[in-house]
Order: sequence, then C-alpha cells, then structure tokens
Amino acid sequence: MSCESIGIGLVGFGTVGSGVWKTLQENSSLITARTDGAVKLDVRRIAVRDLTKTRDADAPANLFTTDWQAVVEDPSVDLVVELIGGTTTAFDIVAAALRAKKPVVTGNKALLAERGPELFALSAETDTPIHFEAAVAGGIPIIKAVQDSLIGNRIESITGIINGTSNYILERMTEAGLSYQDALQEAQDLGYAEADPTLDVNGWDAAHKAILLATLSYGFPVDPKQVYVRGIEMVRGIDISFAKNLGYVVKLLCVVRAHEDGSIEIRTQPSFIPRTHILASVNGVFNAVALRGDRVGDALFYGRGAGQNPTASSVVADLVEAGRVLRQRSGHHGFLPYRKEGALKSIDDTKTAYYVRFPVTDRPGVIAEIATALAAAGIGISGTHSPVNPSQPDADFVDMVFLLHTCPFGQLKEALKTIESLDCVTDRPVVFRIESLT
Amino acid sequence: MSCESIGIGLVGFGTVGSGVWKTLQENSSLITARTDGAVKLDVRRIAVRDLTKTRDADAPANLFTTDWQAVVEDPSVDLVVELIGGTTTAFDIVAAALRAKKPVVTGNKALLAERGPELFALSAETDTPIHFEAAVAGGIPIIKAVQDSLIGNRIESITGIINGTSNYILERMTEAGLSYQDALQEAQDLGYAEADPTLDVNGWDAAHKAILLATLSYGFPVDPKQVYVRGIEMVRGIDISFAKNLGYVVKLLCVVRAHEDGSIEIRTQPSFIPRTHILASVNGVFNAVALRGDRVGDALFYGRGAGQNPTASSVVADLVEAGRVLRQRSGHHGFLPYRKEGALKSIDDTKTAYYVRFPVTDRPGVIAEIATALAAAGIGISGTHSPVNPSQPDADFVDMVFLLHTCPFGQLKEALKTIESLDCVTDRPVVFRIESLT
Repeated sequence: MSCESIGIGLVGFGTVGSGVWKTLQENSSLITARTDGAVKLDVRRIAVRDLTKTRDADAPANLFTTDWQAVVEDPSVDLVVELIGGTTTAFDIVAAALRAKKPVVTGNKALLAERGPELFALSAETDTPIHFEAAVAGGIPIIKAVQDSLIGNRIESITGIINGTSNYILERMTEAGLSYQDALQEAQDLGYAEADPTLDVNGWDAAHKAILLATLSYGFPVDPKQVYVRGIEMVRGIDISFAKNLGYVVKLLCVVRAHEDGSIEIRTQPSFIPRTHILASVNGVFNAVALRGDRVGDALFYGRGAGQNPTASSVVADLVEAGRVLRQRSGHHGFLPYRKEGALKSIDDTKTAYYVRFPVTDRPGVIAEIATALAAAGIGISGTHSPVNPSQPDADFVDMVFLLHTCPFGQLKEALKTIESLDCVTDRPVVFRIESLT
Repeated sequence: MSCESIGIGLVGFGTVGSGVWKTLQENSSLITARTDGAVKLDVRRIAVRDLTKTRDADAPANLFTTDWQAVVEDPSVDLVVELIGGTTTAFDIVAAALRAKKPVVTGNKALLAERGPELFALSAETDTPIHFEAAVAGGIPIIKAVQDSLIGNRIESITGIINGTSNYILERMTEAGLSYQDALQEAQDLGYAEADPTLDVNGWDAAHKAILLATLSYGFPVDPKQVYVRGIEMVRGIDISFAKNLGYVVKLLCVVRAHEDGSIEIRTQPSFIPRTHILASVNGVFNAVALRGDRVGDALFYGRGAGQNPTASSVVADLVEAGRVLRQRSGHHGFLPYRKEGALKSIDDTKTAYYVRFPVTDRPGVIAEIATALAAAGIGISGTHSPVNPSQPDADFVDMVFLLHTCPFGQLKEALKTIESLDCVTDRPVVFRIESLT
C-alpha cells in the first residue's frame, strides 16, 4: 500500500528541530514501512527567526522562511510542529494551527503548563489533535503511558527526576565535590545547561512537567501559581555531605500524589531520598518517572530526558500518531512484515564471555588438561576457580569453574566436545553467558 | 458528549479475565471521563469452560456461556477479548473475531509468537485491529513503546527480564540459599508459579515475549524453532555462589540485538550480569526491559510483569484504544477536564520527614534552645548532627543539622519562625524534605 506523503511545517529549527529533520531524513523509509505505507512524512516548510544562522542540519534553503504564519497557512502543510519555546509567540502558533484544523506537535512544557487549558479547549473545539510527548522527559514515552497505557488506572502517585540539568549538577556536586557554581559552569561547558539556566535550576522546568503529568492524571487544570517549587540553587556541599553520611542522596524531585480527601499534592524541590532506592541511581542527564496506579502497581520509566535525538524521537512518534489519524489508520494490525529477508544470527555466531562449570575428578592435572584443550581451541581463560567451601570436602568429584574470554558460542561448543571426552570430566559442563550489558 | 457503550465479549474468565471485569466495574466512569465520553466499555458476554466453577469476580450469571462462538457472533459484542491461553482454540477464537470484523485484544504470547504471522495477516486483510499489550511484561506498556513511541528509532538492542516466576525463583536461590526445587515450591505456594510451571522455568514464556518484541522491532516473522532457549532448571546453588563471589547475579535474560550484517540475535538463557547494573536490581515478580534505539539512546521500562491487576491494566488500555478507533476518536485533544472541583492540597498540609540545617553561633546551649523550640511546636527530633569535618574549625559560626520526624510543612514553618528569632541562629535555616519513597 502506498499513499501521498503528509506535509510537515516546522516552526523552530534549533537543537530539537534539526534533530527532527535528521530523524525524518535518516529513518523515514523505516517509518513508512512500519506503518504499512500509510504514513510518509515530508517536511515542507521551516520557520526560523534568523535565516542567516548556521544550522545543525542541511535542510534545503528554499524550505526556510521567517514567517511562521506562512508555514501554518501553507496548504501543503498538514501538521504543524512548534519548537520555538516560550509562551507568547508559541501560543499564537499553536492556536493558529488548531484554528486551521492542522494537528499540532509540540515539546513546549512551559506553554502547556501555563496556557495548556486554553489550547486544549481549542483542540477539542476544533476537533484537531495536539500531541506533546516531547514536553516531558525527552525520549521517555511517559505522556502516552499516562494518557493511554494506564488509562484504566487511578493514579496514586508520580515521583520523578525530570530535569537533567539539575540532576547533572547535583551528581557532580555529590561525586566530584564540586561547588554549585563550578558544577553549573561544567554543565554549561558540556552543553547540558543552557546559557540561561534559570528555569532548570530554579525548579520550574521540572515543575512544568509535573503540572502536565498531574493535569493528565487528575483531570483538572492545575494553576501553576498554586504549585510549590524550589530549585537547586540553595543546595550546598555541606548538605550533600550530610545526606551521604545519613544514607541519602540529594535529588531534585517532583512529587504528585492523590490523597484520600480528593486533594492532589504537587511539589518540586531538592529532597533527600534513600541511597538504595532505584531513583537514587538515576544519574547525569537521565530522567526517571516512578508511577503507582491502583491496577498496575509500581512502574518506572527511565531514559534520556533531553537532547536532540531523544526529544526528536518523541516528536517523530507524535507526528506518526497524528499522521495515522489523518490517514484514518489508527488501528494496529499487529506487526506488518516489511523485511522479507530478515535473518536470525546463528546462535553459534553469537559472542559473549562465559562461565563454565566442569564436574571433574579431584586429582592433580585437571586444570592443565582442560586449559590445554581450551588453548587448542583458541579460547582465552580469564580465571579458574574451585569452590571456596565445597559441600563435600572429601568427595572424589568437585566442580571446577573456568571464566572464558569472549568468543563465538560455536567455538566454545566445539571445545566442550573435546573436553567432555577427557577422563577427568565426570559430567556435562554447565555454561552461563556473562553479559557485560554495556 | 455521550454516546452508546461499546460491547465487550470476554473469552476466558480466569485470573486476568476477572481482573478485567473488576477494573471495568470499578474504574469505568473514570475511563469514560478520560475519553470525553467517547468510550464507555460494557462487558456483554463471557465464555468459560465450566459454568459451575467458583469465580474471583461476581459477574451476573446471565452473561456466561460455554460457547465462545456465541460470544464472538453476538451482535451486541463489538470487541473480543481472548484470555484462555494456548495456541489452538485461542487461534480459532481470534481468527473468528477478526473475520467477523471485531477488533481483538489478547494477552496470549504463545499464540502470537507461534502463530502471530497468520493472525496479523488476517488482521490486515480484514482491516480489523489486534492488540496485545498484555502479552509482554504484564502492566508495562512495552508493546506500545516499540509499536508507537519509538517508531522513529532503529532498535539496536532489547535486553529483558520478562519472566517473573523465573526471576522470583532465582532471587530466592540467591538471597535465601534455597535449592531450585524448594524455591519453585515456594513460588507455587505463593501463587507466583502455576501448577504446571513448565513454560516459565524452561524459558519459553520469556522467549515467546522476546520473539514478539523482535518481530515488532525488526519487521520479519521470527521462527520460534530457530530461537535458542534455555531455562532455569539447570541453575544450581553452586553457580549462584560463584556468580556472587565474582560480582555477578544470575538472571533469566532475553537478548535481542541487531548486528551490522543485518542479522538479528535472539536468545533466552540464564546469564551472569554485573551486580551493579540496573537490571541486577530487578527482583521478585517484577519485569524490566532495557532498550537501545538510535535516537532515544538507552531507555528502561520496569513494573509488574504478571498478575491479575497489572495484566488487566494492559488489557483495558487496549480495549480503550480499540474503542477510540471504533468511535473514530483516536486524536488526542491534550487533556479533557473531567473534574470541575479538583483541588491542590496546600503545601502547608503536606507531610514528610525533614532535614533542617541551622547556621548557628558555636556555643554551649544551642542544641537545647532549638530542641526546646521544636518540642514546643510538637515536632519530634530523630537526630542532631554537627559537621564531622568543619571547613573552618575555629569559626564562631557552625552548621547544626536536625533530622525531624514527619509533620505537616506548615507546622515546621511556624516552628522555624520562632527558631529564626533566637539569638544563636545567625542565618535562615535550610530545609530539605526526606522522602521515604515507600
């Protein structure tokens, strides 16, 4: 099946916008195949503030304009992507697109937290969808989880680490003993913090995301003015040290919680959390959202919370969803074969390191015999071990463990055939793969 | 907006089926509100094998029948849910529903891994959707992640712990030193393992899930006969001990990985993984899927991989998605207000424990003065600390830390007002919440 492509108008071509462009260039045939030909996305116009600026992606010059209205109004544009940030012009862009009945994709958490109710009402009034997976936690599909996957749940609580800049700064203060100022400077030098990091370090970026999650979970518009927000500027090395000594780590934490009286608690602030909790191991620019529902119980979503490609991943997913609706192809048919020649790798060709336990006769020379056979097969040994406390110290048979370097499984199997035939080996060896998981 | 309800036919009313019934009874008004009235789900017929069996949920007797065909053919049934398991009758049920153009929701991983390609082809041919979020990792929305949220990504690898029974048994062997047999018995006694645990402990339940994830990610049907599968029956205490001593834990791991030559590696087997890796801390009946995409980078999804309510959560999400398509209401309008009287809890009424650091004059009596003020405010102290290594040992001012028991924030604020006015307190106290995250 094939059909006409869907026209995209991009408003904003900074980090995320150029990531969306590149993703659509590099993976568009895959996307079209995965939607059985229904969704072919084509960027037709791009609005930017300054046409002369150097860009991170090489879109054709004739796509660019400084006039966002021309993009929204262009009849060849079916879907509008707003990626300029802020709450004024961005509002006008989204509202204009919805009024033109063009579905909108945005990653603008400030806009939606501050002025979402107006835009959502307009979306319903015009029956024109608005998608914003990229607005919370970058590449992690937490909006879809709350909107769709957990729709049958009463959400009891959401606890999130959803500002990568703050998390990076706190981690560097904790691990490297940096001062707040030095850690912030380092984050800026590495591109993890913007030139103006105000909304990150004062907690409001995280709070905007928490407000969106709370709004989706609890069904009423949350007034940002009523939300308690504190940032990480007040965190000092002395607090980090105390936290460490007491078994905690300091994280900028968003807490959303439903109470029995029907009220909703929402707050964002640097908090002590137990060092052993899974959220304590969320480091660097990663985000995590822990959620508890009355049906699903505890669930956790973890991934890159910002950056060009992870955020583009979510924008593109929204574009595909909007495209499916435009093409009236929302229903899933399971899996659509798009690779006719897909092949599995033979298990013999797959490689890891190995743990092999050989049941052997307890006599001198056993290690040498096995090691010689492994060497003949070209397999390196990283260690050999016998049990520290054998359960039967006087037994004639013991288990001898060999740790082996990475090699194809087929090579190991061949070597084991030889070794099994040795007199000293009394039973079939037991093999576990050692997964490095890098 | 309101509209007619959507008729559900349940085939199978065991653990998951009765969980779906209960979820729809208890949370259906919430679901209808969240879909702006578009999706009202109503169970109209239930097929079971034995009408006399005691059930876990109290559905009206007149809904039940032993004839699944009557359920599929019932004109009041719009959507069919297959929850009987197995690959023969279940196949007939799903195929009959698709031929009747009734969208199907199933959690049957064996059916889809073994005979999915036939059913998916039928789904496409009849243009009738099939949904199966519940087939992999219970309540974790990993199918939607792979099908929709990460559709713009080339999936580089998927690594999962996706059989809770095996994971529970391995954990008990590791933590409590139980033998395989004793751990299996305990899992059965607690309801974590079925009376016939064959498919769990021989690795095939996990392998079926891995096959589904690989099929969705790589676009060709994977032949189960070509997949390498080993279960946990061969794991012995001695291997667990060795793993521990070497810095690893033993997990039943599914590995799916794309290679540069285009081939796909798929295998399921007990493996050693580094004790420090996040997957090593996935314990008990929890599941986790770690995924790497070319755009999103590393992401992880974690939650309950089985059980009545988590699995029902996924079945219900699929029913809502199918219902949205039936009602042609797939496009999201952001958030639809359904609670007019939603209220935030005042920050003063929110409760946690606290860390409070007071900059104070370094003289005797300071702790007593602060402690007295806290006592007067009715706030309990769990500890007081001064810095172990003050940076300026001869300074006149030091920081004194108090750890406080749980109390409302407003109560703490009042107490701090009093304490700030003490002569010995030289600057504003710094407050961190201590989150227990239970």
